[in-house]
Amino acid sequence: MFAKETYVARRRQLKESVGSGLLLFLGNDECGMNYEDNTYNYRQDSSFLYFWGLSYAGLAAVIDIDEDREIIFGDELTIDHIVWMGTQPTLHEKAQRVGVTETLPLAELKKYVEKVVAQKRTVHYLPPYRAEHRLKLMDLLGVKPGAEMPSIPFIKGIVNLRNYKTEEEIAEIERACDVTAEMHLEAMRVLRVGMKEHEVAAALEAVAQVHGCNLSFPTIATVCGQTLHNHYHGHTVKEEEMLLVDAGAETAMGYAGDMSSTICAGKKFTSRQKDIYDIQVAAHQAAVNALKPGVYFRDVYDLSCRVICEGLKGLGLMKGNPADAVEQGAHAMFFPCGLGHMMGLDVHDMENLGEVWVGYDGQPKSTQFGRKSLRLARKLEPGFVLTIEPGIYFIPELMDYWKAEHRFTDFINYEKLESYRDFTGLRNEEDYLITATGARRLGKKIPLTTEEVEAMR
Amino acid sequence: MFAKETYVARRRQLKESVGSGLLLFLGNDECGMNYEDNTYNYRQDSSFLYFWGLSYAGLAAVIDIDEDREIIFGDELTIDHIVWMGTQPTLHEKAQRVGVTETLPLAELKKYVEKVVAQKRTVHYLPPYRAEHRLKLMDLLGVKPGAEMPSIPFIKGIVNLRNYKTEEEIAEIERACDVTAEMHLEAMRVLRVGMKEHEVAAALEAVAQVHGCNLSFPTIATVCGQTLHNHYHGHTVKEEEMLLVDAGAETAMGYAGDMSSTICAGKKFTSRQKDIYDIQVAAHQAAVNALKPGVYFRDVYDLSCRVICEGLKGLGLMKGNPADAVEQGAHAMFFPCGLGHMMGLDVHDMENLGEVWVGYDGQPKSTQFGRKSLRLARKLEPGFVLTIEPGIYFIPELMDYWKAEHRFTDFINYEKLESYRDFTGLRNEEDYLITATGARRLGKKIPLTTEEVEAMR
Repeated sequence: MFAKETYVARRRQLKESVGSGLLLFLGNDECGMNYEDNTYNYRQDSSFLYFWGLSYAGLAAVIDIDEDREIIFGDELTIDHIVWMGTQPTLHEKAQRVGVTETLPLAELKKYVEKVVAQKRTVHYLPPYRAEHRLKLMDLLGVKPGAEMPSIPFIKGIVNLRNYKTEEEIAEIERACDVTAEMHLEAMRVLRVGMKEHEVAAALEAVAQVHGCNLSFPTIATVCGQTLHNHYHGHTVKEEEMLLVDAGAETAMGYAGDMSSTICAGKKFTSRQKDIYDIQVAAHQAAVNALKPGVYFRDVYDLSCRVICEGLKGLGLMKGNPADAVEQGAHAMFFPCGLGHMMGLDVHDMENLGEVWVGYDGQPKSTQFGRKSLRLARKLEPGFVLTIEPGIYFIPELMDYWKAEHRFTDFINYEKLESYRDFTGLRNEEDYLITATGARRLGKKIPLTTEEVEAMR
Repeated sequence: MFAKETYVARRRQLKESVGSGLLLFLGNDECGMNYEDNTYNYRQDSSFLYFWGLSYAGLAAVIDIDEDREIIFGDELTIDHIVWMGTQPTLHEKAQRVGVTETLPLAELKKYVEKVVAQKRTVHYLPPYRAEHRLKLMDLLGVKPGAEMPSIPFIKGIVNLRNYKTEEEIAEIERACDVTAEMHLEAMRVLRVGMKEHEVAAALEAVAQVHGCNLSFPTIATVCGQTLHNHYHGHTVKEEEMLLVDAGAETAMGYAGDMSSTICAGKKFTSRQKDIYDIQVAAHQAAVNALKPGVYFRDVYDLSCRVICEGLKGLGLMKGNPADAVEQGAHAMFFPCGLGHMMGLDVHDMENLGEVWVGYDGQPKSTQFGRKSLRLARKLEPGFVLTIEPGIYFIPELMDYWKAEHRFTDFINYEKLESYRDFTGLRNEEDYLITATGARRLGKKIPLTTEEVEAMR
């Protein structure tokens, strides 16, 4: 937890930004896996963490801007809780640690909200992302599930704070990134032909845990890297395959790291793998070199796409003008996802508040296949923390689908492409802070090029 | 997945047991940790798994007993899903694997349920344990959240099947138990004075993952074993401390193992630790020896409690008649939890269906502190799988609470107890199958006595 002044200042800035009404924060509850008491690892809502610092289930909080009150709602533990879960500070003690003096039992929340509604004042709330949030909003405000109307001023107020990372946040994110780097280095050390994917996942996840970290997202460790979010880890790794690892640590405070690496199963990549890998590294480095304040991230994305198209043209997989290919969306055959995203208390920072506010500054997103998956497009500013993760994928289902529809036959050499059907996919990912003049990589460096990866094998 | 005949037979038996109406099964959805797409590891509802075998989010199923129809409801994947998540069999193909020929889009479920309601037929549903279930029941049946009326015939029909494990289930549970044993053996191998608790947790959880298993519940690995469900793993393990480990593996099919062990930080236990440990082992062995069909598990619990009281009387911590102490509940100072629970597709099997049905055969539970936490009391029958896990705990908060209220001063020597305030707590846990004539331990044996633990150190 940061010093209480941090939380006090954040709440004050938010209050000034929204101006009036009641800001309602719903903390996350426990979630049962297969019955109520067999819970997943508890994760507090990130905006609750950001403004109230407390990572406990069963809390809510309000900032009553008009009446200048800040209240945390929650219940004290009974002796039964203590026997099972141990002693905790009282709610009042917890609240004081984050500069809040007023606490009330959870049952008082509904009365408080109803009073504000009766006074015809605005109750601002955030978009629900768990069923429990919908139930609570229905109970507190009578909002029909699915018909919630989250507060845009509340969302914008939070985004405008959380998007700009402070020194103390950057230090914490860098801790997450250092552990994340160790996870990838461990994967590179332990991987051997004949291992199961989940053995590598076990080894790298243990590194996070040894450092007292959680995972910031479910690990990807797959020889089928063409499936972007592949969580099946039952394959045996074979000679000449590549293992794509996308994994990250989350510190006890909730800050995330997120890196990817693609590792040769044996000592060396094949020459076909090297050719594609080198193109991806070129796209990666072009993107990193372009990072600085004032640059639109959508332009960095376009740049990386063009580098990929140029490289693939060199191999005969694409043809025509790379810039035109990118503009029309032909690159998405090989790179159907985004180049990067904001990162902070969430690995896709504030995804629950809406990418249009977080990554697009309120501007609409493209609907083009591939480009629509870009989570970040806005003009970069100092304090932004983001990932850079171009990739090149050969997705048989997409090849068949586009080929049957004769899509982009001017840009894609489908005949040549057929011989890459079994290539799978690769990406490398690093985390960057936008500085006053450029960008700085966060966390220990992990191997990026084929030479650097091979040196670890 | 078992052979399709298994699922067909289970559904037929359930149908015959309930007799009429519509049996509604809500499969579990994904649950976002800190935003919708950053999901916890997916876990299907266990009754859904038991009758329908499919571990995918976004499914529901019905058995229309009156019309003799079995339908799985779900949606096919789009090309966007396939790019991100890979190819899957179609819903129809998945359904055929479990002997179901009829599938419908998820949107058809509501119409189907409404038709049954309009026909004044009964819609049977199970107790909700996730907020998403409450939302669905509200949407499908107009049931107010919190006012659900689960079907007792449906619950009893399921409990009467799931409580009796078949040969193929026992083989699968034994696989989970073998991996669980390896997790504990690994903890005994790696633990060293000066390690953090989470380093040990990392090592033993990696064992589950290496075997392709999940965790059947959140790991406990703590030097503060007096807190029964202690998930804080940040302490450094010191000389003369004990690490209490309660952890288990879940196989890919969803079957659980659940064992506990208490490990000396150094090479040996102290003599004070040995004294208490030996009492717990005696209680454990007495309980195991008592296991056979026809015996009430509440009597096995009483027996283990008496052994604990007798032992503690020998150390001067208790006094008076052990049987009276147990009857009145004084033992709960040291053993405030249950002796064991059913285990199967859930580590506390079917806890979501109600312990009164699963472990009490419909009889009421005690309200006495300690005894009320006993999850299993009914007469044992062949095919039951259960845990044996007596423990002895010194809980400072409970000592202070009872002492201030002068509780059980005839049975508890509070003065002597004071000198054990810093003892912490210990337990050992094994898993047993009730056979035709007695009981059989499931899974590889792990050290139970202090001598056996010390031999591993």
